[in-house]
Amino acid sequence: MGDTLILGIDIGGANTKITEIEGDNYKTHHIYFPMWKKKDELEKLLKNYSDNVDYVALVMTAELADCYKTKKEGVEDIINKVENAFNCPIYIFDVNGNFLTPEQAKKNYLDVSASNWNATAKFVSEFIKDSCILVDMGSTTTDIIPIKDKNILAEKTDLDRLMSNQLIYVGTLRTPVSFLTNKIEFRGKLTNLSSEYFAITADMAVILNKITEKDYTCDTPDGSGKDYESCLTRLARVLCADRELINDDEIVDIANKLYNKLLELIRENINNVAKKYNLKDVVITGLGESILKDALNDHYNLISIKEIYGKDVSLSTPSFAVAKLLQKQLKY
Amino acid sequence: MGDTLILGIDIGGANTKITEIEGDNYKTHHIYFPMWKKKDELEKLLKNYSDNVDYVALVMTAELADCYKTKKEGVEDIINKVENAFNCPIYIFDVNGNFLTPEQAKKNYLDVSASNWNATAKFVSEFIKDSCILVDMGSTTTDIIPIKDKNILAEKTDLDRLMSNQLIYVGTLRTPVSFLTNKIEFRGKLTNLSSEYFAITADMAVILNKITEKDYTCDTPDGSGKDYESCLTRLARVLCADRELINDDEIVDIANKLYNKLLELIRENINNVAKKYNLKDVVITGLGESILKDALNDHYNLISIKEIYGKDVSLSTPSFAVAKLLQKQLKY
Repeated sequence: MGDTLILGIDIGGANTKITEIEGDNYKTHHIYFPMWKKKDELEKLLKNYSDNVDYVALVMTAELADCYKTKKEGVEDIINKVENAFNCPIYIFDVNGNFLTPEQAKKNYLDVSASNWNATAKFVSEFIKDSCILVDMGSTTTDIIPIKDKNILAEKTDLDRLMSNQLIYVGTLRTPVSFLTNKIEFRGKLTNLSSEYFAITADMAVILNKITEKDYTCDTPDGSGKDYESCLTRLARVLCADRELINDDEIVDIANKLYNKLLELIRENINNVAKKYNLKDVVITGLGESILKDALNDHYNLISIKEIYGKDVSLSTPSFAVAKLLQKQLKY
Repeated sequence: MGDTLILGIDIGGANTKITEIEGDNYKTHHIYFPMWKKKDELEKLLKNYSDNVDYVALVMTAELADCYKTKKEGVEDIINKVENAFNCPIYIFDVNGNFLTPEQAKKNYLDVSASNWNATAKFVSEFIKDSCILVDMGSTTTDIIPIKDKNILAEKTDLDRLMSNQLIYVGTLRTPVSFLTNKIEFRGKLTNLSSEYFAITADMAVILNKITEKDYTCDTPDGSGKDYESCLTRLARVLCADRELINDDEIVDIANKLYNKLLELIRENINNVAKKYNLKDVVITGLGESILKDALNDHYNLISIKEIYGKDVSLSTPSFAVAKLLQKQLKY
């Protein structure tokens, strides 16, 4: 007889992530599954992973997608589909750190909405460090969550998070580089940048080898390729230039200067949180782990989820986290 | 017998502007005419303005539109259509300040491409001030052109202009407000802004009454209205908020803070140009005249094209300028 099989599921608007956990073994699946187009096929998708599953642990954000008029409608529909797909107990993680039954979750739909990062934070506090700053740098934003003696001290709304250095609207892929600064030093002159949507952090990150071409999973600003050369072309355009007007070394230098602006912005915000809560350990996760390392290595004791659990878990921590938390609660 | 009728024509990618000048009288027409869709109807459009015309003075930028494969093809096609529409002499203004015949212009197509701002600069140097900084704030960019003893000291490429404070990529309408800064003071806290395409300078300008709703001629970021209330909604979104989370006075305060960032950026760049060329007079034109006034009033002697020639001329100075220059050259 094998161990108990627990499935952690994170149903997002664009991606569904599933982690299978059996004892100390785990495997993570990333599935591009745009709910606004395909929500009626969710049940069918989940059934592919239902064999021999003993328990399901669920978090979601897809209820915020515009295929649902309200959070209530979204939460109900998603839970119904999960119930139809599995013949086993289902537990839904809420923002207060509890597992709810489907009935409880539908009743308290506001508590189970967008609880995915709470799952990650609780997992970190239980399994990695009970006092630390959890930093998750995804494609679009960087979430900074202070944890003190297992208390997750995150603000509730995005507005409050922006106001208290807990949310920076910079990510590994989708941030326009002109958000980082509107001027940089070029050929010894402080030079204005274009404000058009010409290049994004993904272009900079490919040029500087912080991500691979394969990690560049969003659309390119000009619709052309994700290769190194195309990234150079796009970055040159931010100075209204091309690869004839400025050479490749100069474009790499521009990438480095923009990158330093990004690192400064991350550092500033984390310094403020660290000071406020007197925290020195930082747990990093997400596609931007290597960027976070560059920003924080000299200043903090870093703990990398990628190094402990692998890249797949780093890219979909909530589905892994929620499964681990249920596993612990059920004492398997 | 009336005065000689001169038509100044500025054929852009999206708009064609025509100024009729007869002695000291003038009238300007703005026509939304997207060349990439309608270039085959250009001749017909121009014929509507051809009655009794004695001379045509032409500038263009539409040759850069993507309906033309090359500048050469664009310049030739546009000049041919203008020739077909009018039974009178046609002069095309070039970047060196000369009027060319259609034959000369087609041969020297690079010299007549995008010469519209040269026409404005030469007009200013001949008719308004022989030493000054010409600042034209349009929908998307702000052009800063130093003029010294009638010499137009503009750099040639956009890259060189960005490097020497002659081009700022901020305009009255289309600039994302998150280009101005990535954080602002809000409720006493330095607050991160969203980098999504949520609000543009047009929203800020409507809220602060720097432009009217009618001047908001570009698309809105969210596709909804251009009224004051919709602009407030969009600006709140830059803090991931809405008009319930933050009140209207607070949104106006955010608009003011962003506006000050815009004014600083404009002032910095113009200060550098003024210092370099030892210039104190600034001639302002374009949709953003009132913004330029706020930025520069206390520091420079301002001369407003809108105040001298009216709003229509301020919004389409090249077509007026090129007609005035031809009128002067022909001594009418």
